[in-house]
Amino acid sequence: MNFSYKNILENAYHEIQQKDNDGKIATYIPELAHVAPSKFGAHMTCLDGTSLGIGDHIEKFSIQSIAKVLSLTLAYKLVGETLWERVDVEPSGTKFDSLLLLETYKGVPRNPFINSGAIVICDILISQLDNAKEAFLHFVRDLSDLPNLTYSDKIADSEKRTGFRNVALCNFIKSLGNIKNDPDDVLDFYFDMCSLEMTCQQLSHTFMFLANDGCKVSDGKPIITVNKSKRINALMLTCGFYDESGEFAFRVGLPGKSGVGGGIVALYPDNYTIAVWSPLLNEHGNSCKAMKLLEEVTTHSEMSIF
Amino acid sequence: MNFSYKNILENAYHEIQQKDNDGKIATYIPELAHVAPSKFGAHMTCLDGTSLGIGDHIEKFSIQSIAKVLSLTLAYKLVGETLWERVDVEPSGTKFDSLLLLETYKGVPRNPFINSGAIVICDILISQLDNAKEAFLHFVRDLSDLPNLTYSDKIADSEKRTGFRNVALCNFIKSLGNIKNDPDDVLDFYFDMCSLEMTCQQLSHTFMFLANDGCKVSDGKPIITVNKSKRINALMLTCGFYDESGEFAFRVGLPGKSGVGGGIVALYPDNYTIAVWSPLLNEHGNSCKAMKLLEEVTTHSEMSIF
Amino acid sequence: MNFSYKNILENAYHEIQQKDNDGKIATYIPELAHVAPSKFGAHMTCLDGTSLGIGDHIEKFSIQSIAKVLSLTLAYKLVGETLWERVDVEPSGTKFDSLLLLETYKGVPRNPFINSGAIVICDILISQLDNAKEAFLHFVRDLSDLPNLTYSDKIADSEKRTGFRNVALCNFIKSLGNIKNDPDDVLDFYFDMCSLEMTCQQLSHTFMFLANDGCKVSDGKPIITVNKSKRINALMLTCGFYDESGEFAFRVGLPGKSGVGGGIVALYPDNYTIAVWSPLLNEHGNSCKAMKLLEEVTTHSEMSIF
Amino acid sequence: MNFSYKNILENAYHEIQQKDNDGKIATYIPELAHVAPSKFGAHMTCLDGTSLGIGDHIEKFSIQSIAKVLSLTLAYKLVGETLWERVDVEPSGTKFDSLLLLETYKGVPRNPFINSGAIVICDILISQLDNAKEAFLHFVRDLSDLPNLTYSDKIADSEKRTGFRNVALCNFIKSLGNIKNDPDDVLDFYFDMCSLEMTCQQLSHTFMFLANDGCKVSDGKPIITVNKSKRINALMLTCGFYDESGEFAFRVGLPGKSGVGGGIVALYPDNYTIAVWSPLLNEHGNSCKAMKLLEEVTTHSEMSIF
Repeated sequence: MNFSYKNILENAYHEIQQKDNDGKIATYIPELAHVAPSKFGAHMTCLDGTSLGIGDHIEKFSIQSIAKVLSLTLAYKLVGETLWERVDVEPSGTKFDSLLLLETYKGVPRNPFINSGAIVICDILISQLDNAKEAFLHFVRDLSDLPNLTYSDKIADSEKRTGFRNVALCNFIKSLGNIKNDPDDVLDFYFDMCSLEMTCQQLSHTFMFLANDGCKVSDGKPIITVNKSKRINALMLTCGFYDESGEFAFRVGLPGKSGVGGGIVALYPDNYTIAVWSPLLNEHGNSCKAMKLLEEVTTHSEMSIF
Repeated sequence: MNFSYKNILENAYHEIQQKDNDGKIATYIPELAHVAPSKFGAHMTCLDGTSLGIGDHIEKFSIQSIAKVLSLTLAYKLVGETLWERVDVEPSGTKFDSLLLLETYKGVPRNPFINSGAIVICDILISQLDNAKEAFLHFVRDLSDLPNLTYSDKIADSEKRTGFRNVALCNFIKSLGNIKNDPDDVLDFYFDMCSLEMTCQQLSHTFMFLANDGCKVSDGKPIITVNKSKRINALMLTCGFYDESGEFAFRVGLPGKSGVGGGIVALYPDNYTIAVWSPLLNEHGNSCKAMKLLEEVTTHSEMSIF
Repeated sequence: MNFSYKNILENAYHEIQQKDNDGKIATYIPELAHVAPSKFGAHMTCLDGTSLGIGDHIEKFSIQSIAKVLSLTLAYKLVGETLWERVDVEPSGTKFDSLLLLETYKGVPRNPFINSGAIVICDILISQLDNAKEAFLHFVRDLSDLPNLTYSDKIADSEKRTGFRNVALCNFIKSLGNIKNDPDDVLDFYFDMCSLEMTCQQLSHTFMFLANDGCKVSDGKPIITVNKSKRINALMLTCGFYDESGEFAFRVGLPGKSGVGGGIVALYPDNYTIAVWSPLLNEHGNSCKAMKLLEEVTTHSEMSIF
Repeated sequence: MNFSYKNILENAYHEIQQKDNDGKIATYIPELAHVAPSKFGAHMTCLDGTSLGIGDHIEKFSIQSIAKVLSLTLAYKLVGETLWERVDVEPSGTKFDSLLLLETYKGVPRNPFINSGAIVICDILISQLDNAKEAFLHFVRDLSDLPNLTYSDKIADSEKRTGFRNVALCNFIKSLGNIKNDPDDVLDFYFDMCSLEMTCQQLSHTFMFLANDGCKVSDGKPIITVNKSKRINALMLTCGFYDESGEFAFRVGLPGKSGVGGGIVALYPDNYTIAVWSPLLNEHGNSCKAMKLLEEVTTHSEMSIF
């Protein structure tokens, strides 16, 4: 099986590599604008131990919103199903930073992967933990087996200077009663959380617990229950790609999550995880090449959850 | 495996049967209001040939919107990927009969399973076929192996007299340019299409082709390609339950489709289909007991696509 | 005073006449598209008996939505303040045919001058009168002193064939419970009501009762009370120009009403009425030249209600 | 004339005084919640020099949003008609602090009297003036002939601690490009601007320039041009009462502006200004008793602009 995956991955990579570059680099976080648009890498980690990489797969990039899956995992682990009183599990149907639905749903974000939802998750973690920033970093270091992982001050500071939309979101939710802590503290954590950097290889490795019924593969340690793990996967499938989640499920057919740094991680439960990176984004804020590569891989392998 | 499914299904059925009846019968279609609220049945059909039924599983009910999966299948088969120029593949994020998003997206419904989308699918079928009503009936008769299946005039007439919201939707889309035929003709077909009646057993049997890579199980006949079959399943998962699609994916974890008659069909690719019926609906228009039963089945069997 | 009005009107007319023609003729009612775009006329009728006309002021045009002021007047006269349980008195803030706010406000249109509101007014008239069409025509014949005025079948039929948006609006309100009669009957009356044709002179004459505390000027006959007359004027000021009502109040400073036929009628209480016609519309559906002319007249005369 | 106004004012005051107290005190600014709900005063200042007061008309209250008319006046005076590139002149049609329309109109608030619009006006003043806070205070001191008027730190601080919705609005507009200065600076000025306190007598006196073609009455000094003065009046009529502006125009028929402190100022051009105060607000944020009193005064005097 892995031999064929290798072929499929390489063929898809080279085919897409040759095509014209569509999309635009995210510029609303100034620091992200410095990345070379031609970067393109992918890495697949299989439950049987196989690990396949291609292109810029061992170069770090800003994982941005992909980290929201990890902060959700920690919060879900800590507070259980009561979490869903603070944030819903429905696709938003609209732009990723929309304020429309917040007004309709009285401050309860539609899901934990749009910005408003991830901000509420940060608020929950601050309430639950003595030092949420440290605790979350520690949690991700453990998941990733990267003991030296740190927040990127450069990225975080860049976003803190320009993230007016997120400041608006957080204060709006506060005004609607669904932020319990000081909005400045919540935003400070949120921007740090989004500043993590990983390579495709590391990212693929980090997400293996979700392909493995909630247990780390490297040491077998249980992170969350099977049931919670399945539910996080379901959420990634229905809500992982902003208002393009339906399209991703339709074309790729795997649970996944994108970030405006150009990364996408996707996973096939009980089989593999795959992380892809190319910084050029489509109008929905998702990486063009990464989506295309994943579509090719699942189409040619005929291996999707559907 | 099937022995354990039998136990799981029966245990779940009896447990839920004893509970209080939540929900309300759909009353906006007067004819549906005559159904006994206590009806409750389920039927599971497995690829290995096993067939398991319980409760009112051989009593006919109005499948309503569940038929939208079948009309989509026929239209997708006929026009291929150009279909998606007329209707999108995204969850709507809002109430099932919302006009809001139609205005935003210039007449292109968010997906083929909300009313507006299904109306556009009817319009496409009318353009493609000499006699869409007859051709669609013929198509469903073949899929279901029910040569005598007919539209229910009683149900269709009842909705024709009261379906002002659907008249509004169809004319609104026409005004936005995405209905090509006479709105009255499109609505006439739409109301007939939604009037089909089946038992849980028949419904479960009819949907087997989507669990079997696009081929009928009874005679092996290919209905649609593997790829299209997977994509329809993806659509059911992200959009099959109106603005509760995320919740269904989260709790049940299977592609499925509900109807306001109280039916739900769900399927586990390469394994089985299951049809459940109980007419009491929650505020989102989905059957309370049917959703609960499906949650129990996938939780206890630990068999979901995630 | 009237001498100076004459100068002001003529100067403004000639100045605007020479300018480039902006705007577009309404094409969504096919019959309206046949009008020559260069048509331009204005007529002012003063309480002291003076009557001033210029340009195409004695040529008939389709008054369209301007008739909504007259149907409101009749309904208000018949049912009094209970009218406002069925339609509100607030500017809509959005496009003239928007469905958004109807959903928010449960079928109660924001005001009687947007299409949805005028449709509800037609429904009220049908409930109140044996033959609403005849009765309304009789009412307008009396107001206008035009005993031979009739509906234009050509215009009405043209709109009946293409007015899908209005069919949608009426059925949508019906589904929300705020239409009591058959939607087809309501629409039939609505399209006829909008098909009336008058010259600028006739239109200016017809609206004099609103500048004269609710009494006809030609024969002194009371049509509505002073209080109701003032309130209709207030409604014209806040809601008479779709989502450009604020702009009209700001630039012109008079109560008025526009129609997509290119007509505008405005009035200065206790002083005069003025009707202007030029078929080229701006993006809000209001006549460009008519608005400009009215702005010039009130600016140079320094006579506005503010 | 003034004798009859005296009677009308007194009769209306006593009649309304006896009625049950409807409405609620604004509690979202904690400092406002300390005001006695029974307060009720009114003051009318006529162009002929007459000055009529009743009830608590010489007790200070927080004028809140009424100050937005004064900041608009100063900004309009400074930048002229280019002002309207930054803020529109249309009624919003929705709740006073809505974010919906900002998204639709790309950061351009619908009018200068909703919070978002007033925040943009503050931004303009900061860009235009060396010390906007001082300059605005100086401007209002001059208009009001109150050389010792100051901002209320208590009120401003109270709102700064709780005004999350306004923080959201300002940052949201900043993200859409229509705030040029630091959002914190803009908000600091905005909260101070809204903290001014006046009595009904002082408020009525302060607004006389708008009833007097733009010139102060006490010393004849021109503040703004006739044309600008008329346009500010038009804006008050169409937009002065949030999403109840139509209702106020309909029932009262005068340009006016309300504040959540319970004050309303209204004016009849070339005749008088009137300020009314009662802290109990209706659901739209406007004072119940003040609206009722004004309706009585214009109905019984038959003196409105319509």
